[in-house]
Amino acid sequence: MEEADCIFCKIARGEIPSKTIYEDADFRVILDIAPATKGHALILPKEHYKDLFEIPEELLKKAFSLAKKIGIRISEKLCCDGFNIVQNNGVTAGQTVFHFHIHLIPRYIDDQQVIGWRPSSPDAEELNKIFHILVEEQK
Amino acid sequence: MEEADCIFCKIARGEIPSKTIYEDADFRVILDIAPATKGHALILPKEHYKDLFEIPEELLKKAFSLAKKIGIRISEKLCCDGFNIVQNNGVTAGQTVFHFHIHLIPRYIDDQQVIGWRPSSPDAEELNKIFHILVEEQK
Repeated sequence: MEEADCIFCKIARGEIPSKTIYEDADFRVILDIAPATKGHALILPKEHYKDLFEIPEELLKKAFSLAKKIGIRISEKLCCDGFNIVQNNGVTAGQTVFHFHIHLIPRYIDDQQVIGWRPSSPDAEELNKIFHILVEEQK
Repeated sequence: MEEADCIFCKIARGEIPSKTIYEDADFRVILDIAPATKGHALILPKEHYKDLFEIPEELLKKAFSLAKKIGIRISEKLCCDGFNIVQNNGVTAGQTVFHFHIHLIPRYIDDQQVIGWRPSSPDAEELNKIFHILVEEQK
């Protein structure tokens, strides 16, 4: 499956050049050209799947297994101080290219990035309400 | 493997109560008590592994396969507009409990959260330098 106008399909197929740090039959791993930090890389499946919900389970497992493998290489080679894995689905979640991808973001003490969120403090009743909605099907 | 003072070990073993939305032999999935958004959940392996680099590959694959499964349930039940998967390693990356975990964060148009980073614009020479460090071992 390919999508004609998908930039990540074109990069994954090698039609658009990229800084490829790893490639196999299923994936291409490239350096992000607008990186959060030095060594920020993207895992791209060669087949087109929009997001987490479309990618088949077996390929998803391979993708995150590869995230560990490449994460180890990046950490060793770049001597970073931490490591974020981020995978966004949907515009509201910050996804900008609608071809499944995983961000591998090495972190450095002085990198000036904040990758996180403001925590909230729901009361017991609010948490319970969400809990019951989510476990409903298990009854 | 367990760690006596690890709060996530205690939660995963059921010694500390939690809002458990899923449980099997390997994992417990709980609602975060300080959620980014409604339905923010954590996947906790029952065995203690510090991070991405310690968790065995097979368990890692199961964890992200579960992230998809629970992600689908959360998305359907809570009708969210997007979905982030975040997995942090090391203090510098925002890890606060040193027991491997995956954040499942449903996103809503009006949730007022920003989970992202400031992009940088390295020149070709800078990107090339990182690229050559990372592909060195493949020569």
